[in-house]
Amino acid sequence: MAVRAAVAGASGYAGGEVLRLLLAHPEVEIGALTGNSNAGQRLGALQPHLLPLADRVLAETTAEALAGHDVVFLALPHGQSAAVAERLGPDVLVVDMGADFRLEDPADWERFYGSPHAGTWPYGLPELPGARARLTGSKRIAVPGCYPTAVSLALYPAYAARLAEPEAVIVAASGTSGAGKAPKPHLLGSEVMGSMTPYGVGGGHRHTPEMIQNLSRAAGERVSVSFTPTLAPMPRGILATCSASAVAGVTAESVRAAYEKAYADEPFVRLLPEGQWPATASVYGSNAVQVQVAYDDAVGRIIAISAIDNLTKGTAGGAVQSMNIALGLDETTGLSTIGVAP
Amino acid sequence: MAVRAAVAGASGYAGGEVLRLLLAHPEVEIGALTGNSNAGQRLGALQPHLLPLADRVLAETTAEALAGHDVVFLALPHGQSAAVAERLGPDVLVVDMGADFRLEDPADWERFYGSPHAGTWPYGLPELPGARARLTGSKRIAVPGCYPTAVSLALYPAYAARLAEPEAVIVAASGTSGAGKAPKPHLLGSEVMGSMTPYGVGGGHRHTPEMIQNLSRAAGERVSVSFTPTLAPMPRGILATCSASAVAGVTAESVRAAYEKAYADEPFVRLLPEGQWPATASVYGSNAVQVQVAYDDAVGRIIAISAIDNLTKGTAGGAVQSMNIALGLDETTGLSTIGVAP
Amino acid sequence: MAVRAAVAGASGYAGGEVLRLLLAHPEVEIGALTGNSNAGQRLGALQPHLLPLADRVLAETTAEALAGHDVVFLALPHGQSAAVAERLGPDVLVVDMGADFRLEDPADWERFYGSPHAGTWPYGLPELPGARARLTGSKRIAVPGCYPTAVSLALYPAYAARLAEPEAVIVAASGTSGAGKAPKPHLLGSEVMGSMTPYGVGGGHRHTPEMIQNLSRAAGERVSVSFTPTLAPMPRGILATCSASAVAGVTAESVRAAYEKAYADEPFVRLLPEGQWPATASVYGSNAVQVQVAYDDAVGRIIAISAIDNLTKGTAGGAVQSMNIALGLDETTGLSTIGVAP
Amino acid sequence: MAVRAAVAGASGYAGGEVLRLLLAHPEVEIGALTGNSNAGQRLGALQPHLLPLADRVLAETTAEALAGHDVVFLALPHGQSAAVAERLGPDVLVVDMGADFRLEDPADWERFYGSPHAGTWPYGLPELPGARARLTGSKRIAVPGCYPTAVSLALYPAYAARLAEPEAVIVAASGTSGAGKAPKPHLLGSEVMGSMTPYGVGGGHRHTPEMIQNLSRAAGERVSVSFTPTLAPMPRGILATCSASAVAGVTAESVRAAYEKAYADEPFVRLLPEGQWPATASVYGSNAVQVQVAYDDAVGRIIAISAIDNLTKGTAGGAVQSMNIALGLDETTGLSTIGVAP
Repeated sequence: MAVRAAVAGASGYAGGEVLRLLLAHPEVEIGALTGNSNAGQRLGALQPHLLPLADRVLAETTAEALAGHDVVFLALPHGQSAAVAERLGPDVLVVDMGADFRLEDPADWERFYGSPHAGTWPYGLPELPGARARLTGSKRIAVPGCYPTAVSLALYPAYAARLAEPEAVIVAASGTSGAGKAPKPHLLGSEVMGSMTPYGVGGGHRHTPEMIQNLSRAAGERVSVSFTPTLAPMPRGILATCSASAVAGVTAESVRAAYEKAYADEPFVRLLPEGQWPATASVYGSNAVQVQVAYDDAVGRIIAISAIDNLTKGTAGGAVQSMNIALGLDETTGLSTIGVAP
Repeated sequence: MAVRAAVAGASGYAGGEVLRLLLAHPEVEIGALTGNSNAGQRLGALQPHLLPLADRVLAETTAEALAGHDVVFLALPHGQSAAVAERLGPDVLVVDMGADFRLEDPADWERFYGSPHAGTWPYGLPELPGARARLTGSKRIAVPGCYPTAVSLALYPAYAARLAEPEAVIVAASGTSGAGKAPKPHLLGSEVMGSMTPYGVGGGHRHTPEMIQNLSRAAGERVSVSFTPTLAPMPRGILATCSASAVAGVTAESVRAAYEKAYADEPFVRLLPEGQWPATASVYGSNAVQVQVAYDDAVGRIIAISAIDNLTKGTAGGAVQSMNIALGLDETTGLSTIGVAP
Repeated sequence: MAVRAAVAGASGYAGGEVLRLLLAHPEVEIGALTGNSNAGQRLGALQPHLLPLADRVLAETTAEALAGHDVVFLALPHGQSAAVAERLGPDVLVVDMGADFRLEDPADWERFYGSPHAGTWPYGLPELPGARARLTGSKRIAVPGCYPTAVSLALYPAYAARLAEPEAVIVAASGTSGAGKAPKPHLLGSEVMGSMTPYGVGGGHRHTPEMIQNLSRAAGERVSVSFTPTLAPMPRGILATCSASAVAGVTAESVRAAYEKAYADEPFVRLLPEGQWPATASVYGSNAVQVQVAYDDAVGRIIAISAIDNLTKGTAGGAVQSMNIALGLDETTGLSTIGVAP
Repeated sequence: MAVRAAVAGASGYAGGEVLRLLLAHPEVEIGALTGNSNAGQRLGALQPHLLPLADRVLAETTAEALAGHDVVFLALPHGQSAAVAERLGPDVLVVDMGADFRLEDPADWERFYGSPHAGTWPYGLPELPGARARLTGSKRIAVPGCYPTAVSLALYPAYAARLAEPEAVIVAASGTSGAGKAPKPHLLGSEVMGSMTPYGVGGGHRHTPEMIQNLSRAAGERVSVSFTPTLAPMPRGILATCSASAVAGVTAESVRAAYEKAYADEPFVRLLPEGQWPATASVYGSNAVQVQVAYDDAVGRIIAISAIDNLTKGTAGGAVQSMNIALGLDETTGLSTIGVAP
């Protein structure tokens, strides 16, 4: 019996990507598709790459439209998920691709989002220690942010193995789809092609507390994070360059051993052979994560770098992977580790 | 029992793409991978996006290495396929992604390639009239060129319905992967980003006689083709803008009706709704073809435009689709009509 | 004594480009800068590449703000130029970078723009026969559209020399800045990178009657034009691929001779050596035009291809070049034929 | 009387860029152009954007060809400049755009380049304290590396004002022209478009000791540098994201004050208004540097970010600026602070 899935916010980039993946998922049947400003339009006009769904029409995002499904994916502006989830009832698996239920500390939420905290749901980054147990059988999933996915997978093994001082410095480059589909002048093709530019510099990006939460849990102590996101001239992909001072006694070998151990059995994370470095093109459209790590003994720092597709592993792929776990399916069902390259 | 497939030329773009597709094909098991200058190297170093095959090592391209498979895909420089195919024997399905067996007229071959003609194999563009019958059960397949795929699917319905004069004017833009992986200065990223430039202008491109062959067969008379290819700043995709004078009595309605009829039942070709135009991004990584057609009554021309992914439907996807037919599998097995966008 | 110039519409792409060029013009002093929705803002926030003007503040676009200048450049939405020009008086040189005064036939204007025709001003494409005489001393200049600039310079020599039949087929690729700075979903970087797509297919593009006007004047008879514009993943540049059937007796040599004669003394147009083809990257940011021509004897067509920067020669550079002529300055003053490449 | 300049290595990216700038320099006359593998070719075939020099032919790079000039720009592979400079004699101004004479410590040179140190020439980054005095009247100039230019201008004010701890962490993104024009597979357009990837991770990049040299001199103590370069999908531009722990007592105000003081009178460096961030597109083709700085009090780090054009300010523009100083010309002669955008 197929899993029946609805998508709220089907006209945006996260909604479109989850539909792309669900179309390839052997256990899922796609049910209601909803939008707000685009309700009533054909999906073919909004997401012309989703050919098999071209003639589906978007409904309004209401509890009625979303009722009667086994799983509901929410791709909504932050602050809207709680109300929808409540009306869906406790027996429906609700997978929130927004930010509302990621943070554990209400003070973090309030400081970065300026509204009351809605709560905390099991966190959909299965590779983190303990995450799979919390996801199994859960009816609520908070899908991680795209940057926290890339950064946590780059750095958590160093912290889990107690190799790094609790002060991480992170610079990440993201493709423009991370900024969404709402048209703004600085996101025009004319502006972004040929340009690299930072934003949210100095600690202001809303993904910062989520990174701190993940790395601190791995480290067993509070990890501070200096995070600078940059916008890169490509539609998809995140390259996260992360570093931290090594604790005394660390060697290149001990660093590599920690990463090999962490990722030996992970189906989606690939620790690259020494000498090869992650590239966002290699994971384009896939749920794979490329990771590489180095120890720079001249400065005593561990440099860990990851590449993901921000829309796949960074959003919709992570959502489907977590759904699989929650439903008791094989974690890799319907997901690929093969990038579309060149 | 799985179909066992080998790929000769696995380090290039066509070879990489056919592997990407075969990895997702439920009936195929990937056997030998061969290369020439790259023999002995890990595939992970050459095609880092093909994660499941990262640890496979390329063999030399020899008949021995390729023996013992049900299907052998050849992604070789032109002129090399005949010798390999001969040694594989008549019972192995050989799918040539090169040019050697596409042209029927030896004079065309000799004029454009400057070497003796190797022969003609069943032509792997199933959407053309009669093609499926010739492919079914065949042990030899000549995969079409990428431009002829895009152009033939844009224009053949107009010729088959006797709507167009036999003089087509075609301007097509291709992503850079169409030029292959051998490094040349004009293909450097620094050169191609931000630039559009034509090449092979004035009838010199080797895909021209193949287009003439396809369109002439559809028209039942010799069709002349003015073909100008251009290189576009994108890795993948072909947009073919094709036009021809309409014969007397043609209307916008009769043109549309001919295309609707031609593509009503084609699983990979999508005639877009009126008012929507093909975009290469929409078919990125997929085997889908977007087609749209217009009749410009001010000049009396039919304008037909198609978008394909040059590596998928234009090369490796077309190869797998034709293999499916030759083997008696469902034609769509392992192939997707869903693009990776944005 | 410096020429004092104002720019109305200084926050858009055409306005920004004319400012970029005027900053390098030795005879011009930049006066008032105006905008509408952006009035009151610092130019540094709107056009951060124009460092020397970063602290200038935009005024409202009013006749008062624009008064007291020798030259006023208008970069306004179509339909607004006539009212502004009227209030500036007959002694001010008004250079309209919009469409309002380009077309000679009111019926053309009304059909394509749906509003009453405002009139016709001397046409700012100095390379066309007779254009320089009409521009010299003029107080009004209609700057050509970007596509008509590229297309007319590619094809007019063939028509002026009576080498081509009066039915031109044109496919042009434009960078995204040609679509302007107003944010629309299909112009987002996420959408345009990696994509080629046509628009205005079938004769609907507003630049079509302008091309017909130019080519018909050169040919001495009505030339029909099939024009298909496409959007290319680059910020700037137009590559126009133009062709027409040759009249009887044409040879490759006669075609080349006509182009050599047409462009022997043109300071901004470069007929490339045989075998070299135009590339938009080569004219990036410059007022140069690269042209090449071929005769395809297999189909009897002349193929003429040009590359320009749509914002420079295609808009603001053409405007400054025409201003120079109108003011009696050397035509090349302040303009460059050197592209920014790679 | 014009300054007569020759360029050795005129077919590469650095050579082409210095020619682009010298063509716009009012005091310079371009003399000999030399190359090695390209000797005998027309510059128009190698650098088609340099229209005014299209018919110049490259000579072999010999002392004879380069003799008789006032200035010789060297754009040669590292290790070749010393021999050429020696033969040119002490009265010719030799501007080396390669690495040979940048490093003061022979041990640094030998460790990173594996060959004997050739010496140290006055360093062509005029904005650094004392640099202008050393350049004035000099007959030898070592042009800085592109990354050290971006990084030093981002961070030196913090070190000069004793605001930062001597451990800098730097992640920089560069356009592909920084990797040169020699064709290599990983630099193909098909590979770089859509991809971000690091290289030289862990302290191995040859520009690292040069950054250490500059920052240590500013700080008055040894500064360690963790440097990770990344390749971005754009032809030009460097965005350098640099950070260091602040010393006790630092505030956002004291940081800003230090940068305002450092750059108050610099003609090419623009400290952006608060809230605006550097973008490589804004300095495209110009000699300008955009700098912004923030203090993240949650982690106690100063984050300084700069954007340059790697070929202009990062190579050829810095070379011309330093030449101007050496020759006693106004430092800004022939150089622009206006980017080509969008």
